[in-house]
Amino acid sequence: MLRQAHGVATTARRSTSLVRRFKHGDAREQLRQLLLSRASARGFSPEPVPDDVLANVVKMTQRAPSAFNTQPYACILVRDQADRDRLAGAMLASNGQKVKDAPVVAVFAADLEPSRRVPRLQKMMYDNGASPAEVNNLPLYLRMFAGEGHIADGIRSVISTVISPLRAVPGAVPTIAWSFKQTTFAAATFLHAAESQGLVTRPMEGYDETRVRAALDIPDRYGIPVIIGCGYPKADAETSSRGPSPRLEAIEVFFDGKFGQSSANIFVNSKEAQKTE
Amino acid sequence: MLRQAHGVATTARRSTSLVRRFKHGDAREQLRQLLLSRASARGFSPEPVPDDVLANVVKMTQRAPSAFNTQPYACILVRDQADRDRLAGAMLASNGQKVKDAPVVAVFAADLEPSRRVPRLQKMMYDNGASPAEVNNLPLYLRMFAGEGHIADGIRSVISTVISPLRAVPGAVPTIAWSFKQTTFAAATFLHAAESQGLVTRPMEGYDETRVRAALDIPDRYGIPVIIGCGYPKADAETSSRGPSPRLEAIEVFFDGKFGQSSANIFVNSKEAQKTE
Repeated sequence: MLRQAHGVATTARRSTSLVRRFKHGDAREQLRQLLLSRASARGFSPEPVPDDVLANVVKMTQRAPSAFNTQPYACILVRDQADRDRLAGAMLASNGQKVKDAPVVAVFAADLEPSRRVPRLQKMMYDNGASPAEVNNLPLYLRMFAGEGHIADGIRSVISTVISPLRAVPGAVPTIAWSFKQTTFAAATFLHAAESQGLVTRPMEGYDETRVRAALDIPDRYGIPVIIGCGYPKADAETSSRGPSPRLEAIEVFFDGKFGQSSANIFVNSKEAQKTE
Repeated sequence: MLRQAHGVATTARRSTSLVRRFKHGDAREQLRQLLLSRASARGFSPEPVPDDVLANVVKMTQRAPSAFNTQPYACILVRDQADRDRLAGAMLASNGQKVKDAPVVAVFAADLEPSRRVPRLQKMMYDNGASPAEVNNLPLYLRMFAGEGHIADGIRSVISTVISPLRAVPGAVPTIAWSFKQTTFAAATFLHAAESQGLVTRPMEGYDETRVRAALDIPDRYGIPVIIGCGYPKADAETSSRGPSPRLEAIEVFFDGKFGQSSANIFVNSKEAQKTE
């Protein structure tokens, strides 16, 4: 039914969007293939990543979204062999070797005290023509959603229980969960940005956070949600790959309309569409 | 210095990767432009998203990585106008209207009791030829890294304080932070996957979690890190766009080698490279 509605739409807006889509069609199909073939790298070539390629990856990574555009993360790009060898001592099991082998190791750090960024963020907003109301409301919004401070957590928990039936209110999310989420939007974008430059990546969470902090001078104020090895693919890893790891069936993870309601129709229609096209 | 080392490498592997990179050069530049131009949608066309397009987005989203490939999330695709109108009552401020306008609303839910997925995950691993050791170790790894259970949290906190100086051990991360992180890898991939299909997206975290759960029958077992509106761009939003939102300077967010150590060289070299090419 949805497809039919799509097929008969003939407005001017639709024509415009068709032209636009046609123009970028090749890039979009390439992106689809890149995303579908993404897998964790099993090895890295020793070939270094040139600065201009890395700068490109960084610029793309920074386009990741964050709540109220607060960007509450830092990323340490560890490249010198000596630095990576030191970091390897903070990694668990085979991740140590991976950090030694990957020419770039991106350590993503999540700010657990995001309110300390407010003055800098307000300056950025002001410089870019935000309204006074937007600039002034930032501390309030940040406190409300990032849930910083244990007292705030308690109050918000009461509010979300007592007021929610009367009026929609923000949930009570711990700051670490909020900050890990914002940082992961950037880390995930880093994966795809690197792929767009012909690089491969390997996200890791097997490490000793205390030791990683010590090795890279990361203040206690930051948690470390993920460390990503990055470089050009190793020639023999490309040929001996076991292929992408399996996934659950799409209908087990994606629901249609409500939790537990099957999304099978989406995929059935999709297969029919492929047959008739 | 890194660039120089890059320039003089003349191994066979390097030639292979040069050919590979040259072949895909145009596509990569287009991809880079796509990722660089990503921004939150300010409006959606009422044009529905066809099932086959949505199925493509789902398939790409599922390629997102997760710790031990546990995929501890669900995603509810809300499409019917009546369902979206009901969900709108759970959203804060202008997000209510956005949920009414976006033809697809993807509600990402993070499993806060990931251990309950173990039997299904073990079956998936077994079906895909994982070794008995990998299959058997999953519950242990999941408990160790996902930090499920308050008693486990306490024990791990002690371990990471006392044992870390002697031996690298996993950190003590609350389950909600771990699960939000895994789910956000999928949510961020959804953004890029949608872009690859000519769609635009708007991630939102302004909502009442209790009300969202009630509106979509989501069990208490799940937290809700992000809700993403998705559809074709609205014609007039394209022309009246204020352009992508600003970002902090790259050198404020990305460090080179250690926290606080300037990454300016990466971007200086990058600019020089652009000039001479």
